[in-house]
Amino acid sequence: MANLPVNKTAHPFDKSRFEALLNRRFFYAPAFEIYGGVAGLYDYGPPGSSLQSNIIAEWRKHFIVEEHMLEVDTTIMTPAPVFETSGHVARFADWMVKDLKTGDVLRADHLVKNVLEARLAGDKEARGIAAQPVKEDDKKKKKKDKAKPTAVKLSDEQVVEYETILAQLDNYSGPELGELCKKYNIRNPDTDNEVSDPVQFNLMFASSIGPTGQHPGFLRPETAQGHFLNFSRLLEFNNGRVPFASAQIGRSFRNEISPRAGLLRVREFTMAEIEHYVDPEDKKHERFAEVRDVELDLLDRHTQVAGSTQVTRMKIGDAVDKGIVANETLGYFLARIHQFLIKIGINPSRLRFRQHMGNEMAHYATDCWDAELHNSYGWTECVGCADRAAYDLTVHMAKTGHPLVVRQALKEPIITEKLVAEFNKKSFGKTFGKDSAAIQTIIGGMDEAQLTRLQGELAQGSTTITSSDGREFKLTPDLLTIEKKTFKQSIREFTPNVIEPSFGLGRILYVLLEHSFWSREQDVERGVLSLPAVVAPTKVLIVPLSAKTEFEPLVREVSSKLRKAGIFSRVDDSNTSIGKRYARNDELGTPYGLTLDFASVQKRTMTLRERDTTGQLIGEIDEVIGIVTGLVDGTIDWAEACRRLPAYDGVQAVE
Amino acid sequence: MANLPVNKTAHPFDKSRFEALLNRRFFYAPAFEIYGGVAGLYDYGPPGSSLQSNIIAEWRKHFIVEEHMLEVDTTIMTPAPVFETSGHVARFADWMVKDLKTGDVLRADHLVKNVLEARLAGDKEARGIAAQPVKEDDKKKKKKDKAKPTAVKLSDEQVVEYETILAQLDNYSGPELGELCKKYNIRNPDTDNEVSDPVQFNLMFASSIGPTGQHPGFLRPETAQGHFLNFSRLLEFNNGRVPFASAQIGRSFRNEISPRAGLLRVREFTMAEIEHYVDPEDKKHERFAEVRDVELDLLDRHTQVAGSTQVTRMKIGDAVDKGIVANETLGYFLARIHQFLIKIGINPSRLRFRQHMGNEMAHYATDCWDAELHNSYGWTECVGCADRAAYDLTVHMAKTGHPLVVRQALKEPIITEKLVAEFNKKSFGKTFGKDSAAIQTIIGGMDEAQLTRLQGELAQGSTTITSSDGREFKLTPDLLTIEKKTFKQSIREFTPNVIEPSFGLGRILYVLLEHSFWSREQDVERGVLSLPAVVAPTKVLIVPLSAKTEFEPLVREVSSKLRKAGIFSRVDDSNTSIGKRYARNDELGTPYGLTLDFASVQKRTMTLRERDTTGQLIGEIDEVIGIVTGLVDGTIDWAEACRRLPAYDGVQAVE
Repeated sequence: MANLPVNKTAHPFDKSRFEALLNRRFFYAPAFEIYGGVAGLYDYGPPGSSLQSNIIAEWRKHFIVEEHMLEVDTTIMTPAPVFETSGHVARFADWMVKDLKTGDVLRADHLVKNVLEARLAGDKEARGIAAQPVKEDDKKKKKKDKAKPTAVKLSDEQVVEYETILAQLDNYSGPELGELCKKYNIRNPDTDNEVSDPVQFNLMFASSIGPTGQHPGFLRPETAQGHFLNFSRLLEFNNGRVPFASAQIGRSFRNEISPRAGLLRVREFTMAEIEHYVDPEDKKHERFAEVRDVELDLLDRHTQVAGSTQVTRMKIGDAVDKGIVANETLGYFLARIHQFLIKIGINPSRLRFRQHMGNEMAHYATDCWDAELHNSYGWTECVGCADRAAYDLTVHMAKTGHPLVVRQALKEPIITEKLVAEFNKKSFGKTFGKDSAAIQTIIGGMDEAQLTRLQGELAQGSTTITSSDGREFKLTPDLLTIEKKTFKQSIREFTPNVIEPSFGLGRILYVLLEHSFWSREQDVERGVLSLPAVVAPTKVLIVPLSAKTEFEPLVREVSSKLRKAGIFSRVDDSNTSIGKRYARNDELGTPYGLTLDFASVQKRTMTLRERDTTGQLIGEIDEVIGIVTGLVDGTIDWAEACRRLPAYDGVQAVE
Repeated sequence: MANLPVNKTAHPFDKSRFEALLNRRFFYAPAFEIYGGVAGLYDYGPPGSSLQSNIIAEWRKHFIVEEHMLEVDTTIMTPAPVFETSGHVARFADWMVKDLKTGDVLRADHLVKNVLEARLAGDKEARGIAAQPVKEDDKKKKKKDKAKPTAVKLSDEQVVEYETILAQLDNYSGPELGELCKKYNIRNPDTDNEVSDPVQFNLMFASSIGPTGQHPGFLRPETAQGHFLNFSRLLEFNNGRVPFASAQIGRSFRNEISPRAGLLRVREFTMAEIEHYVDPEDKKHERFAEVRDVELDLLDRHTQVAGSTQVTRMKIGDAVDKGIVANETLGYFLARIHQFLIKIGINPSRLRFRQHMGNEMAHYATDCWDAELHNSYGWTECVGCADRAAYDLTVHMAKTGHPLVVRQALKEPIITEKLVAEFNKKSFGKTFGKDSAAIQTIIGGMDEAQLTRLQGELAQGSTTITSSDGREFKLTPDLLTIEKKTFKQSIREFTPNVIEPSFGLGRILYVLLEHSFWSREQDVERGVLSLPAVVAPTKVLIVPLSAKTEFEPLVREVSSKLRKAGIFSRVDDSNTSIGKRYARNDELGTPYGLTLDFASVQKRTMTLRERDTTGQLIGEIDEVIGIVTGLVDGTIDWAEACRRLPAYDGVQAVE
């Protein structure tokens, strides 16, 4: 049978095997490795690059094409005034502490997290309930990124206290983190030295533009500002209408304090960001009905502040109805993010949406949810989805004077009546001289109630008003009249709000690799990456029995027919057994293999192998190409392929 | 008739109209425009972004997929030691001069070029042979980037002198440019002030990595070093074999001194680079036969040094045979570059390949050709294609000690015989004591002839040798023997050479837009961008007669069927006439339009419009979708479409 069930969980996830595979197959590697490398910078090799560009292509289809978003490509190098206005120069910083003896620099929140988690693990060990004993291998390896647990029992109160701190860790300010270090005697786990009070470190890389150094600049830490600065051009491109979205895929840079978690915390990364502009008074989404029933695992802010990390499974429609998620547009994107992640192969049971707590959220945001993916480092934010309100457009407009607003023709003009003061300028000037303007300003600033009172007093003869410096002026009916006037407003002008889904593609790629990795039941050394065909670096491997010239015409034919069908294939005619070549491509995540042997030459048959089951089918060359095309496109599945083609038993009659 | 001939050259190229179109349709715009902008930084709007990603997609197909190149994605931020080794810290610089009064900074070679070209133009004007009189409009506009020609007649000798200088401008060193400025009284054309001697300015943007500032870094000015540093991983990925190529598409940065030519000279740009690794002893290319007959316009270095810019049209096969192009691999890529540029819509009569002159070429390169594209700024280098020899791999290997070499099993081991000295260590030590090692080193360093002589002298009893400090030592046969030994070498180790095609995608994109732009014969205000479907931002525009709901189901149907066929379409249901909507999309370069009207609702017919001819055809909806799919895929052309569908005369019967 070609379609046998597969046991992918026969062996527990083994990180060192997994990392060895990624390294061996050059998915990625430390950048400048031969120069000793630099923390937080990685290069993608051929399979990593292809995987990344396939994820990007799918992202383009799922978001940009599907929703007719306006793609932009803006510069990374950004003059300082932009980030001064956006608040990044003042606030885009992490808290760091220094080891008081060695001067080593550590991120304050990561330090607290590592030490408290290690103490909790040590407590479990002491209580004899450690889930997994620490392996010898791991102990020997110098792991700088983790505090090492030692079996020390904590009091029950301490356990609760530590767990409560960890559940709301992102909610602490810098000084509060410093207090935690003091209160719980948190030291640098590498040296056991005390650490300094936390200080802020701005995470932007600085440079300067031009030959004279007169233009300070920063490398953008997010692509968002590039969208906002082009808002009025984009609005015009969209015929002046909202809602619409801009989208951008590109590099951003963050000078992380002490990056130690592989691709999960890097100094240079590819992002995909959407800025969806909506009417602040109408955050409904016209396609919300299509996703209303999508179920998500939600972890809201109240649960976290109460010290728990228990998720609630809920339809997004219900979450919006109940006000857990702030509005339909935000909810729509949470559901679409969920769909995208599942489509590229993320394990749905290891995906949750966590709401930001009060202090954690950017000061301007009204609601924010992170799509977090579970992996061997814990839960990691991979997509942020924030309602940035009108903050960015408002500050850039205030700074530059350029109108970043929507002007909307009202269907029904709004008719309003209000009291207006009209001055008799001549007698006003004669009476008050140089004080005239100041007095008119005071009256101009009065609200409806004050004007009504003034109107009444004038009707009775006269009144006095007081200037800001305390002088009194007498007003009489010959100086001014106060009357109701009718106003007609036919244009509504507003600053749109922005809903921002922001994807860290490198993080998603890394977690996807973890979720895809397993070892064959019969041999733990045979690793497989079960990447879905839609993102797999190579879709089809063509394996001629050998590099002999007699196979060449067939290899060229199959290769060219696949290319015409739009399928990316590779030929492996290396000097090793077919089994080894397939094992290599299981590690590369190649879902299908086509073998050409002597029977192919004589009878034009070809075998088709499926990666996960290792099942093989056989058929006439063009028929098999048709089947594999359907498999890669997703129009048929392997079970269907097994119905259409006979299983291959490993022996082919060659006459 | 739907297939009428089109006159695209009725109006001369009008740069201000062209630029107004690009700006109006947001192909691109100065970055940070609302902050006043920064020279040399541009943002791409929706059509520019799409055009760019379509060019990239086609590039991937044409090079990476077609030739099974290994794609990589390496970091932009690069630690300083890498560029110290590569030579960029010392040499990646331009010569700049300062205006002696204002301090304005100018690039020396551009200054010489602008001033001499302006003088030649003034001379032509004075002689009454100015090709195009300067228009009032252009005169009024403050053009900082050009010296303004004034009608001053030059002597015939001066004209020849200036033309000779311009033809080999790229061949002058910095001090030579300074001498030209003095000799020809070249001043800052903006102020008429004298300028300083040229000084070097390094073009890399500097930054620093990490919180303590201890790691200086640069933004890469090219993607190439990222390939080279990963060479041994890539070689392993390719099963240890050469030739193979790595490819990368990504951002690079150059802190240009005074960027003034729009997208042609920018500080941040997207490149596509190929590093093709070959055996230095065999630079043949296995697919050269496929391109041998491709004809190119070549401008070799001898022609330029002789003061001419006359191209020679030649088959690449002949150019390689005659030694004009250094080797087959270089020639192969020149032809492939030519094919790529033509495919995306570059005008072949405005494409030439110019060879670098001696001084112009990087010191390590053995041959280098630029694909230059003609445009309103003159001839611009858009693709460089250099044979970098073994330079980069050699210097990185020398610096890091990491072997960046190919080890190749020899088919026939190489058997060599040579004389070898063997020492009787015991008696050697007894005789010479602490001088033993020095004497052995001297003998070990002898060549075959010296050893033969020594062997002869020893056979006769004894000889003496002299140490570096002049002392003499007596050698006798009991101390050493000299004999022929046989050596067998079965592995050949070598540093591969690198052929590097390097594409400036922004420059190509800009020139492509210029080459695509024309105005309709009957109305100069109606601009068209005749972008080929393969790169056009949007392939098909769907135009419902109005935004009325009765058209919605059809719009959705057509839109979804096109998406299934893999064709990117947009709907324009804006509140304006169909004619205006088509005019807008002619400016956006959208090749086909589909109109849905009342007849579509009643009879399921749809019209198909072709952008350049404005011809229209009519047919049943699914039939038209089939035709337009063929047109976009390039399987049929417009003439064929006209044979298959009846012309639409503008009146459709609606019952």
